[in-house]
Amino acid sequence: MPTLDRHDDVFVLDLGDGENRFSPDWLAAVDAALDEVEGADGPRALVTAATGKFFSNGLDLAWLLDHADQREAYLGTVERLFARVLCSPVFSVAAVQGHAFAAGAMLALAHDQRVMRADRGFWCLPEIDIDLPFSPGMSALIQARLSPQVAHVAMTTGRRYGGSDALAAGIVDAAVGEDAVRSAAVELAAAHAGKAGPVLGTIKSRLYAPVLALLRGRTAPVG
Amino acid sequence: MPTLDRHDDVFVLDLGDGENRFSPDWLAAVDAALDEVEGADGPRALVTAATGKFFSNGLDLAWLLDHADQREAYLGTVERLFARVLCSPVFSVAAVQGHAFAAGAMLALAHDQRVMRADRGFWCLPEIDIDLPFSPGMSALIQARLSPQVAHVAMTTGRRYGGSDALAAGIVDAAVGEDAVRSAAVELAAAHAGKAGPVLGTIKSRLYAPVLALLRGRTAPVG
Amino acid sequence: MPTLDRHDDVFVLDLGDGENRFSPDWLAAVDAALDEVEGADGPRALVTAATGKFFSNGLDLAWLLDHADQREAYLGTVERLFARVLCSPVFSVAAVQGHAFAAGAMLALAHDQRVMRADRGFWCLPEIDIDLPFSPGMSALIQARLSPQVAHVAMTTGRRYGGSDALAAGIVDAAVGEDAVRSAAVELAAAHAGKAGPVLGTIKSRLYAPVLALLRGRTAPVG
Repeated sequence: MPTLDRHDDVFVLDLGDGENRFSPDWLAAVDAALDEVEGADGPRALVTAATGKFFSNGLDLAWLLDHADQREAYLGTVERLFARVLCSPVFSVAAVQGHAFAAGAMLALAHDQRVMRADRGFWCLPEIDIDLPFSPGMSALIQARLSPQVAHVAMTTGRRYGGSDALAAGIVDAAVGEDAVRSAAVELAAAHAGKAGPVLGTIKSRLYAPVLALLRGRTAPVG
Repeated sequence: MPTLDRHDDVFVLDLGDGENRFSPDWLAAVDAALDEVEGADGPRALVTAATGKFFSNGLDLAWLLDHADQREAYLGTVERLFARVLCSPVFSVAAVQGHAFAAGAMLALAHDQRVMRADRGFWCLPEIDIDLPFSPGMSALIQARLSPQVAHVAMTTGRRYGGSDALAAGIVDAAVGEDAVRSAAVELAAAHAGKAGPVLGTIKSRLYAPVLALLRGRTAPVG
Repeated sequence: MPTLDRHDDVFVLDLGDGENRFSPDWLAAVDAALDEVEGADGPRALVTAATGKFFSNGLDLAWLLDHADQREAYLGTVERLFARVLCSPVFSVAAVQGHAFAAGAMLALAHDQRVMRADRGFWCLPEIDIDLPFSPGMSALIQARLSPQVAHVAMTTGRRYGGSDALAAGIVDAAVGEDAVRSAAVELAAAHAGKAGPVLGTIKSRLYAPVLALLRGRTAPVG
C-alpha cells in the first residue's frame, strides 16, 4: 500500500512494491496522502515514487471484473485523482523507476515533471492492444501533455518507451541511472518547493481547464 | 484514377499517376476503396500511395471553377474524406513518394503515420500564396497533427518541406530513399494490421473530436 | 516611447530604450503604430524591436498599483493588443535583443516568428514567482504557441531561457549574435512582405480562434 514520508521540504509518496494497481483502498490511501501534502504549510513539494519493478500498472482490472456495477464510480475516482494531481497547488515530480503502464502511465503524466530510469522499464499505453479505448478525459490528459505526434503514436500503436526513448519524445523530462531516479526527482522537487500555493494551482487549472472538466465530469461515486 | 490492391494484410490504395487532384470521380473512387478496406474482415491496414511525381496536388480547382454552385457540397465531400481517414478503424500510412500540396498535404496528415521520400518532392501548404484561406476544419486538422511552431510556419509562410526537413519538423515519421517509400510504408502498416477494429476508431475519434466536428459540419452534398 | 520607421517593405517598431513597460501611453503609441502598418498599402511586414537591455518587462505594475480601479480595462487593452498582433494581416517578427519578461514575453509570442540574441538576455514568464496567475487569455496564448512540455515548464517554474535554450525549446525561431538580431528579423520579415493581406489575417484568426475569443472577452475599456 502507498506510504508517505517527508524529507525536509519534499514529501515522498511511495506507491508500493507490487504492481501498484489502483484498488479502491490504494486510491483512498493516495488521496489521503495528497490531503496531507496539500494541507501542510510552507514550502513543500511532492515526489511520487514506487519500489521494485513497477511504478504502476494502472487500473485494478481484477477488482473491476468483480465489481462491474461500480465501474462508473470507480473510473470517476480514478479520473478525479488525475485531475487532482494535474492541478495540484504543490509542485510534483513522478520518479518512474519501473514500468508505468496504462493508467499508471497517465498518473505519471499528470505530474508537473517526470524522471525515468534510463536503462530498464517502459512507459506504455497498451489500451489499443487490450481493446480498451481511453475515456474522453484520459484521452484529453494524454493529449495535453505530449506533442501531437507522440500522443498519436503512443495511443494508436501502444509503443513501449524506454527511458531514453521517453526523454527524446518529451514524455519524461530526465532519464537517469537506476540509483539516481528518486534522488534526482527529490532534488528537482526541492528546487520548486517554494512555489507551493494557490497561484501554482490556478496556473495549472487554467492551462488544463478543458481536461479537468472532462476528468471531473463523471458521476460522483456513491458512498 | 485511384486503384486498390491487397498484399496479405495490407491494402495499397494508389491515388493515381497524374497530379491526383480531388475530382468528384476521384473522390468517389477513394471513398469506395475505403469502403472495401473497412468492410473487410480480420487483420488489415491501409497504405495510401501514388505513382510518379505527385502524391496529390489537392483540390480540383479547374473543376471547382466550372462548378462554383457546387462549391459547398464539394468541400463537404473533401472534408468528410479527411474525417474518415482521420478516425479510420484501420491503421493507415501515407507513402508520400512525390509532391503533397495543399489538400493533398492534408490528406497525408490525416493518416496515422507518413513515410516520405527523402531526396525529392515537397510537402507544402501553399494556401497563403494562392490567397485561399484554410477552412476551419482544415485548419483544425493541420493544427491537431503538428507542433504549434511547425503548424504556424507551414500555414503562414507556405514553406516547402523536403523529406528530411519534414522528418525533422515531425510532419512525417520516416524519410527514406525513393525505392523504399512504398515498401517501408507497407512494412509499417503490416506491423499494425492486428490493431484494426472499432477500438482503434474510438481512440482516434476521441483524440480528434473537435476536428471531426468541424470537418463534418458542412452542409451534406445533394445527391 | 515606441517609434515607427519604415525601411522598404519592412516597418520597424522600436518599443523603446528603457524597460518598455506597458503604460497606457505606451500602449496607445503601439496601437497607433499598428494602425499605420496595417493601413499602409502593398507588400509590407512588421519587425518589433527595442533598444538596450530590455525588449519589454511587460505590465506597468507601478501604474496598475496607482490605478487599481482601472485594472480590468487596462488588462483588456493589453489582451486586445496581444489579439491584434496574433492575427495581424501583416507578417510579424519580434527581434528580441534583450530581456522579454512576463507580458513582454507574451507580446513576443504573439508575433509570427521570433529572432533572439543568442548570448545575453532571457525570455521568461516569472508570474509563478511574483504570485500573479496568468489570465485565461494569456494562458491560452502561451499554450497555443509552445509545445505542451515547454509551456508547462515555462509557466510552472518561471525558467529563464537564454537565446540558445529558447531556440532548442522552440520558443524562438532563430538565435543570433547581438549585432545580427535586428537585421536577421528585418530580412525574415522582408521575405514575407508579399504575404500581407486579409488571407494571412484569416489564416491566423482561424488557427487561434479560441485564444482570440478569450483575449477579446474582457470588458471593453471605458473612454
